[in-house]
Amino acid sequence: MTTKVNVNDKFKLFTEQWTPKVVGQVNDQHVKIARIQGDFVWHKHDNEDEMFMVIDGEIDIEFRDKTVHLTVGEFMVVPKGVEHRPRAQKEAKIMLIEPVTTLNTGDQVTEQTQEVLETL
Amino acid sequence: MTTKVNVNDKFKLFTEQWTPKVVGQVNDQHVKIARIQGDFVWHKHDNEDEMFMVIDGEIDIEFRDKTVHLTVGEFMVVPKGVEHRPRAQKEAKIMLIEPVTTLNTGDQVTEQTQEVLETL
Repeated sequence: MTTKVNVNDKFKLFTEQWTPKVVGQVNDQHVKIARIQGDFVWHKHDNEDEMFMVIDGEIDIEFRDKTVHLTVGEFMVVPKGVEHRPRAQKEAKIMLIEPVTTLNTGDQVTEQTQEVLETL
Repeated sequence: MTTKVNVNDKFKLFTEQWTPKVVGQVNDQHVKIARIQGDFVWHKHDNEDEMFMVIDGEIDIEFRDKTVHLTVGEFMVVPKGVEHRPRAQKEAKIMLIEPVTTLNTGDQVTEQTQEVLETL
């Protein structure tokens, strides 16, 4: 377990979007990375906070009452129970920290739902 | 809670070393940042994994049997119970993710121990 992870090297291992890959675990939280572009589905996680950090590019996290714009070196935590929709005009690379139990589409099941995540 | 954090801006708010500052919380984990330079104390956290990610500069995580060198964009998770010693030749900026219960010096109490952490 005591090996390091180079985040950019991990991004070279896949090109698909909206498919979070597990790159680490700290306690009961997964560290995931994803490429995202376009609009995701509106959803919430009833019991799980979700941390978004931008590694490359820019993203928006839409809430019902506002939009938060994130760029490289910025992060935010979406609290449990809060509806949100991630989106990116151009492809962006993000890192996520959230419980190992978290489903990407939360309380929604769509064609973007990823039930089984690949570990890189 | 739904506000973003710019990590570099947070680093502008302090200059002291080896004093982790809390900049976020995701579930039961704190997101902390710290400036480090020199050798820390050998220690372990019996019940807590600890994630180190380099934001600026380079660090070493020494273990009893090896040393892992981390640079910008790299992270590693130090598993619970494993003795380690962070160090940096020049000042480095790091981000930490670890349970809210984690004491920086783990099972050791030294002049570097920070019992109460500032939130930025």
